[in-house]
Amino acid sequence: MGYPGTFEGFCVDSPQSWNKFHKSELTPKHFGDSDVDVQIECCGVCGSDVHTVTGGWGDFEGPLCVGHEVVGKAVKVGKDVKLVKKGDRVGVGAQVWSCLKCELCKNKNENYCPHLVDTYNASYPDGGKAHGGWASHIRAHEYFVFPIPDALPSHLAAPLLCAGITTYSPLARAGVGPGKTVAVLGIGGLGHLGLQWASALGAETYALTHSPNKADDAKKLGAKEVIVTSDKDWAKPWAFKFDFILNCADATDSFDMKTYLSTLKVGGQFHMVGIPDKPLPEMATMMFTTNAAKLTGSHLGNRQEMEAMLKLAADKGIAPMVETLEISEAGCKEAVERVKESKVCYRLTLTGFEKAFGTK
Amino acid sequence: MGYPGTFEGFCVDSPQSWNKFHKSELTPKHFGDSDVDVQIECCGVCGSDVHTVTGGWGDFEGPLCVGHEVVGKAVKVGKDVKLVKKGDRVGVGAQVWSCLKCELCKNKNENYCPHLVDTYNASYPDGGKAHGGWASHIRAHEYFVFPIPDALPSHLAAPLLCAGITTYSPLARAGVGPGKTVAVLGIGGLGHLGLQWASALGAETYALTHSPNKADDAKKLGAKEVIVTSDKDWAKPWAFKFDFILNCADATDSFDMKTYLSTLKVGGQFHMVGIPDKPLPEMATMMFTTNAAKLTGSHLGNRQEMEAMLKLAADKGIAPMVETLEISEAGCKEAVERVKESKVCYRLTLTGFEKAFGTK
Repeated sequence: MGYPGTFEGFCVDSPQSWNKFHKSELTPKHFGDSDVDVQIECCGVCGSDVHTVTGGWGDFEGPLCVGHEVVGKAVKVGKDVKLVKKGDRVGVGAQVWSCLKCELCKNKNENYCPHLVDTYNASYPDGGKAHGGWASHIRAHEYFVFPIPDALPSHLAAPLLCAGITTYSPLARAGVGPGKTVAVLGIGGLGHLGLQWASALGAETYALTHSPNKADDAKKLGAKEVIVTSDKDWAKPWAFKFDFILNCADATDSFDMKTYLSTLKVGGQFHMVGIPDKPLPEMATMMFTTNAAKLTGSHLGNRQEMEAMLKLAADKGIAPMVETLEISEAGCKEAVERVKESKVCYRLTLTGFEKAFGTK
Repeated sequence: MGYPGTFEGFCVDSPQSWNKFHKSELTPKHFGDSDVDVQIECCGVCGSDVHTVTGGWGDFEGPLCVGHEVVGKAVKVGKDVKLVKKGDRVGVGAQVWSCLKCELCKNKNENYCPHLVDTYNASYPDGGKAHGGWASHIRAHEYFVFPIPDALPSHLAAPLLCAGITTYSPLARAGVGPGKTVAVLGIGGLGHLGLQWASALGAETYALTHSPNKADDAKKLGAKEVIVTSDKDWAKPWAFKFDFILNCADATDSFDMKTYLSTLKVGGQFHMVGIPDKPLPEMATMMFTTNAAKLTGSHLGNRQEMEAMLKLAADKGIAPMVETLEISEAGCKEAVERVKESKVCYRLTLTGFEKAFGTK
């Protein structure tokens, strides 16, 4: 059929064939008065895509089209849409809907709405399916469609829609700024943005990494000092040091949590934004009572934080370090395989959508 | 020898004989210019005493004298002491010393000082031993000796020195007050005080308990409603409800943490003050990202919080529900056995010290 009746996307069928992509027709939800259709220009590749296609976060029924770091052009807007105009360059992240009526939504916590709809592998209350952004188009409620500032090139803006907001929001909510000491743990797709936000917000920023070879990058991205966590007794000089540790690593299940928590100030936060497939390591209550450490995490951010983050990036020239890949069966395969093997410095964006889907 | 050279206390020799107490002579640390000697009138019985004598928190070498909810009379003060006068009725809690020089101490976090000395089963930097309060006397630095307001009877003031501050400090630090919704989990020695503080501070206060038979008490102590956690699906009506859960239970190792965390508002705290011998149950990162729940704990409180708590108790008539036992070999045995078996409603204070030690 084709747009506007259907979209086209690169899909996988099951966790067993997680790296075998094929083009499929996708039927979007019914177009509502507050919806926006975006013709996609490019889309980032996120660790979540890999956790999902491999079944690490649970089984699924294909065809599944992932991708939730979308940049493109608004080609159709519902009659009630006020936040986006047809023709705008916009982004869509990892959430496409919330009820906007509950206490959470009314208190700028739509990213925690119990009725929220993820961008893919999810259903709307009416049963319509949400399909991701490795596709010709995406449909989303206007509240989850964000104008992209002119200063940001599309392939660099794309990763901000998930990796960006995921790392920015917790720092903003914790009041990170001048006078605060922040460590960013895990210098990869998330962490290399976390370093930039923490530094731009004015915090004294440190990088925690087990890879000494990332030290130069980390310093360029804003780290005052790089602390190598594979060194013996690395934590001892840093006891009670950090107000906030932004844990961007995907391997928290294998961490010596006691050691990490020992580097927090009294009441400091160990804040997780990467979500490993496996449970957290064994922990003792006393690991928390020694310094009132807070173990926590978060999910994306709200609309106001997304807008503030995009403006901060545009104003201060903050951008992810991005390698681009042309979207195709082979391109999608390479993308998920490289993210799975952590062979990306530091983020991938799939491009060439108009050509692949014939949308130009 | 006897006081002032030595103290006398009821002691156990090892975890194997955890409930076999005998009177022993105890040599206190060298008396310093900032030290205060307290002739003990009564002393509370705390879960920590039981964790310690049974070896749950680690092995020890006896003779060990526990007890850290002391009330008595200051009978000797060092020449630099300013906070206490000879003859004052004073209390000593679970900490008798900190360096008072480090960044933590200078920032009113002396209860997290890395050099702190616990009231018993602990050594001072100079090698002197700290002995607990089931004894004729106790010696402590003046900063950890607190005048007891006249309105508080000694046997009711004693449990405030540990159970009281342990439950008051986290509520105060979290800004609990009008407009906040607080749940106190586990209505026992700690929780029955937590309910009273939360309510007195102005929070909408709930009790979480697996014992429906504690409902009447919980309401008298300030709970607006009692939520019975042994009911199936108990948590569903309370999703996203609480700003703060004060976890006073000693059985966190067996909790369904996902269910408890689901009742927190976005960014709410699950705050542990009971310390089980066993590790925390298995947890997934996603339990934290669903609502940005914070898992944390704390250790006692600072001097300012202790003073504020004692004043609040005196002003508002807040007191633990206390059963008294005469101190003796049999009394100490009964005390630790009943606390171990949770057969106390809700707190025990050992009394009759002058008679037992001939100090009057």
